[in-house]
Amino acid sequence: MSKVLVSFSGGMDSTTLLAEALDQGHDVEAVGFYYGSKHNPHENTAARSLASNYFKVPFILLDVAPVMSHLRSALTSLDQEVPEGHYEAENMRKTVVPGRNLIFLSLLAAHAESTGLDEVWLGIHAGDHHIYPDCRPEFFYPAKETVEASSDKKVTLRAPFLNMDKTKIIALGRKLGVPYSLTRTCYKDSVLACGRCGSCQERLTAFAANGIEDPLSYESRSLILG
Amino acid sequence: MSKVLVSFSGGMDSTTLLAEALDQGHDVEAVGFYYGSKHNPHENTAARSLASNYFKVPFILLDVAPVMSHLRSALTSLDQEVPEGHYEAENMRKTVVPGRNLIFLSLLAAHAESTGLDEVWLGIHAGDHHIYPDCRPEFFYPAKETVEASSDKKVTLRAPFLNMDKTKIIALGRKLGVPYSLTRTCYKDSVLACGRCGSCQERLTAFAANGIEDPLSYESRSLILG
Repeated sequence: MSKVLVSFSGGMDSTTLLAEALDQGHDVEAVGFYYGSKHNPHENTAARSLASNYFKVPFILLDVAPVMSHLRSALTSLDQEVPEGHYEAENMRKTVVPGRNLIFLSLLAAHAESTGLDEVWLGIHAGDHHIYPDCRPEFFYPAKETVEASSDKKVTLRAPFLNMDKTKIIALGRKLGVPYSLTRTCYKDSVLACGRCGSCQERLTAFAANGIEDPLSYESRSLILG
Repeated sequence: MSKVLVSFSGGMDSTTLLAEALDQGHDVEAVGFYYGSKHNPHENTAARSLASNYFKVPFILLDVAPVMSHLRSALTSLDQEVPEGHYEAENMRKTVVPGRNLIFLSLLAAHAESTGLDEVWLGIHAGDHHIYPDCRPEFFYPAKETVEASSDKKVTLRAPFLNMDKTKIIALGRKLGVPYSLTRTCYKDSVLACGRCGSCQERLTAFAANGIEDPLSYESRSLILG
């Protein structure tokens, strides 16, 4: 059994990750981030509620907006709309936040080392590799080596879903009984998930590939072809 | 010529680094950090003044205290004294801030990528390897690989002093005309550099090894044997 710090956004991937860590019997804590993105308030609320009320694990929200909200991305810029459509489309590249996962894992590793936790778990996975360089194996393996060197091997990094796509993550999550109706994946700031942004579209596609209906409420559920 | 972002504390190492980057003809910007350390206000003031008034390069101060001041270290804890004495001594380990360089380089790489800069330069060097795991080559090389992967090779990481100690850094700085009287190295929060903390002691030793007097004003200049 390890002491595990889960990077926890309250979305479907990291909620499945949290459930997997608990299922493996680890001692688990969760950290979420507010980084000035339009969808952060909704996902932060979902994360806190899932961690505290559903999974009953300690949850900390780190406010990194003062040092991240200026980074150029459609997710954080007030003058750029979050694009809609298929995830692989060129306009979805606007949703890249430079260095996001590197900043997050740095803060997680420091927090883990400071409080005596052994492992940091990230929910990065194969579905994101095309658009997001900081979700690829070429990023993860040197990052793991960096965290181990930085902490004198007191902390390591794990990405159990690195080679799984969202369809496989949902299949695992169903076995674990993950309450997907409580998770929040949408990149927009609407109260209900929009169903049209790349993040919603990818999620809806993955549920469809499992032959089941996403239990979340959406403004729209139509799949937009890429 | 490259567009270089220098991690700039206003201390003797990073000031020499900034001077070296300018001497090589690069287009240079500097970033400092406030992370809740007792000595930050003094070094931040020195950094801003050196960058803006002396070197005349753009300077940004990033406030990471909200996400770093809780990390366990004698530098940030109000209930722990900054130790005095020789740098290699066991009690100097209390000055390690978990993950500090990894957090800094993550934010620097994100800032560089977001604003179109090519390189992030760190002042990590051989003198610090013994105590600080995040100043060693075993940390730097995977970190460089991580930054390149995270940014899709738009940004790289450099540590020109990685295999130099402070004695060699001062020798270089003298050739470059670095104004060491304006730099701030002390780990204490006193107005004058204390001369007794490990950071001051290492600096005084390095000046002595060059056969010159440190032009900075100190409360005390006696070398304490380790």
